[in-house]
Amino acid sequence: MAKNVITPQGDDFPRWYQDVIQKAELADNGPVRGTMVIRPYGYAIWERMQAAMDRRIKVAGAKNAYFPLFIPESYLRREAEHVEGFSPELAVVTHAGGKRLEEPAVVRPTSETVIGEYMAKWVQSYRDLPLLLNQWANVVRWELRPRLFLRTSEFLWQEGHTAHATEEDARLYAKHIHEEVYARFMREELAMPVVLGRKTARERFAGATNTLTCEGMMGDGKALQMGTSHELGQNFARAFDMNFLTEANERELAWTTSWGTSTRMVGGLIMCHGDDAGLRVPPRIAAVQVLVMIVKDGEGVAQAARSITDDLLKAGVRAELDDRDSAFGRRAVDAELKGVPVRVEVGPRDLAEGSVTVARRIAGGKSSVPLGGLVDHVTQALATDHDALYAEALARREDRTVAATTIDEAAEAATTGWATIPWRTVGIDGEARLAESAITVRCLVMPDGSVPTAHEEPDALAVVARSY
Amino acid sequence: MAKNVITPQGDDFPRWYQDVIQKAELADNGPVRGTMVIRPYGYAIWERMQAAMDRRIKVAGAKNAYFPLFIPESYLRREAEHVEGFSPELAVVTHAGGKRLEEPAVVRPTSETVIGEYMAKWVQSYRDLPLLLNQWANVVRWELRPRLFLRTSEFLWQEGHTAHATEEDARLYAKHIHEEVYARFMREELAMPVVLGRKTARERFAGATNTLTCEGMMGDGKALQMGTSHELGQNFARAFDMNFLTEANERELAWTTSWGTSTRMVGGLIMCHGDDAGLRVPPRIAAVQVLVMIVKDGEGVAQAARSITDDLLKAGVRAELDDRDSAFGRRAVDAELKGVPVRVEVGPRDLAEGSVTVARRIAGGKSSVPLGGLVDHVTQALATDHDALYAEALARREDRTVAATTIDEAAEAATTGWATIPWRTVGIDGEARLAESAITVRCLVMPDGSVPTAHEEPDALAVVARSY
Repeated sequence: MAKNVITPQGDDFPRWYQDVIQKAELADNGPVRGTMVIRPYGYAIWERMQAAMDRRIKVAGAKNAYFPLFIPESYLRREAEHVEGFSPELAVVTHAGGKRLEEPAVVRPTSETVIGEYMAKWVQSYRDLPLLLNQWANVVRWELRPRLFLRTSEFLWQEGHTAHATEEDARLYAKHIHEEVYARFMREELAMPVVLGRKTARERFAGATNTLTCEGMMGDGKALQMGTSHELGQNFARAFDMNFLTEANERELAWTTSWGTSTRMVGGLIMCHGDDAGLRVPPRIAAVQVLVMIVKDGEGVAQAARSITDDLLKAGVRAELDDRDSAFGRRAVDAELKGVPVRVEVGPRDLAEGSVTVARRIAGGKSSVPLGGLVDHVTQALATDHDALYAEALARREDRTVAATTIDEAAEAATTGWATIPWRTVGIDGEARLAESAITVRCLVMPDGSVPTAHEEPDALAVVARSY
Repeated sequence: MAKNVITPQGDDFPRWYQDVIQKAELADNGPVRGTMVIRPYGYAIWERMQAAMDRRIKVAGAKNAYFPLFIPESYLRREAEHVEGFSPELAVVTHAGGKRLEEPAVVRPTSETVIGEYMAKWVQSYRDLPLLLNQWANVVRWELRPRLFLRTSEFLWQEGHTAHATEEDARLYAKHIHEEVYARFMREELAMPVVLGRKTARERFAGATNTLTCEGMMGDGKALQMGTSHELGQNFARAFDMNFLTEANERELAWTTSWGTSTRMVGGLIMCHGDDAGLRVPPRIAAVQVLVMIVKDGEGVAQAARSITDDLLKAGVRAELDDRDSAFGRRAVDAELKGVPVRVEVGPRDLAEGSVTVARRIAGGKSSVPLGGLVDHVTQALATDHDALYAEALARREDRTVAATTIDEAAEAATTGWATIPWRTVGIDGEARLAESAITVRCLVMPDGSVPTAHEEPDALAVVARSY
């Protein structure tokens, strides 16, 4: 229905993405290079992601805190790989309060360093461990080729930071966040079938000893890194002297982790589920699950629409009433563009027969539903829609993933989708060769789909793809 | 009980404040001058404030969005008073991505300018109005004399920004936020009896035509501005060319408002309700309303404590279990310091008699409560505590507010509390004279307690005080 207002995916996927963001009023470019204005409809999606993720993070035992935006430049230099990784992307405050600062302040690109400094103060004894913190914040990484939600100079995220008494405990927690918080959130709220794996040394976070990742396949077959969880070994603990007294009364360095997910997930949601009519929002994350619309005003129509909305709200459905009397077609296209899962269209003729029309954005089609059964019908539809989106995304991923045996074959597959290929066939050299064609090893997985527990797993498969 | 661990208020109020923040683990100084680390217990208070305020803002019809941290320096210059007001406090990014920026980017001190730019794009016709937006964000205003929560170089806040078709509509919305959102939140959630008034021209927000304020009295008799709501006239609409087509098909400039509350409210909460034993958290904002503690382990004690916690949680009480077996006295002092409203102390002796001890932080005292009536007892206690905190703060304010007739009398009263004095007795000259002794006109109010509707109300009273 809305096919004419946006570029079809098949014609030009990046332009389709831009069109959806603009027409569905999700975001705008900010005035300073690479920054982003998140508009109310886009922010409502992020807000629901935040709430759902926050609940899961709290269940995992981490507590929210807030650390400063500005970090002394010297802090970053304490961990050699970390500063090397982030230096090219830093924004630096040199003047404040009308004066040149004695030491320039870096706008946080991530907070391992400043949080490391404070954890070192707070951790004195093994009794203080594990220390499990999380923060919701904005971070800045200067982008030369910005793309809304996917790569912006400023983005919003949560970053978890934890300290543990043993390497084993740190490892288990990073894994718990990866599997039980991130992957489950992505599957159960975003309806996205992410692949869980381990990054190669080349793709690892700057300063980590191990990076676990959730990779999603987008509508064009490219990969998007949706979230990562890092084991940091004792690298940051050493840099910030985060030591503690063990039960045996000895001083030891702590083991730390960090993990993050960001507004980038909104981009992933758009590109995983969107179609030629626009966005399709998974019901559990949709701010508006059901739009109750007046087709044409008439006797009792507005009143009926209002009472339907109330009934849905009472049943715990996030319903919104659109009782404008203006051009229905345009409003319906707008709802399609915005990906509202279900529309309930209320018109005088249907109403006279005691029914309304239910239009489904995800399953497609329209049907007449008697008023008495509407709430059940809608509730059922939303549950089905979640499963349908997940199944569709999974089918695409399976369909477009090729089991390759040579690097050339993998590179060929990566022009339209993903390839899996034994990591020992690729190796560090093969990875560098693929990189020349902008193809990366997204992650390593075991043949049974599990996450390799060590870097040198001889049987590990590399998942190879182009990516955002 | 905890009197020995913190400085008494009467000895040194500012030091008492610092002690509470440190001992209750609310916040720490950040590494860059004036910045703040909000620790989990402090953040939990802010988080509940946020959630409650956000609900109220949404009920008022505003939608959340997010605008960039960085603002082009040129934007600020477009509104003359605004740039003059904020220039001395700006932090400026001059380098990013390894290069000097062509135009320096200012770290937002507030977002009227950048939001004005986008609203001007989005507002085309009267049908787009009112446009009601809000954002939760960090802002930066360089502070030379920082004080945790009260004045920090970076702070967290919400800032609302709205555009309206008429001056009247803008005025009514600014007033609605002031009275129905801010003041009610402060009274009903924070148990703080704020005075609502209008700022003098001297104290107005830079760029506003009118500033409405909520002023609270702290434990030392000083005033704290807890939140402000501004009418901006057409000042920003003119600067950003925010015009719209009226129903009569004519171009007109919009009328805008802005309004904000921040982490400063946490400071206000501490200084309004705290006492010599530490913090006292109003029950509705308390992350932990009830701490269920094991006094001494014994048969069935841990199990009973756990089941009591579950019962309270089921009844909707925010209860937490402290089942540590270590020094009870120390844990009790800690709970006092942190201002947990109710402690349920579970010990083997009480338990044998089918009861527990309930200790009240706000009402004071301990009593033995039979297990069967515990949930009701606690629920009742929390409701009473809210009212008691409010009544106590109101009584102090009334007790320490003097009706003065001369400026000298008002200045004298301001050494220990507030004074009200006819504004015509003070005037612009008197206001300047008071300022020499660091005394300010906090706001103008009408003799009946209502907010003056015009600047030149001949009967208005000035509320005069020292302030944070």
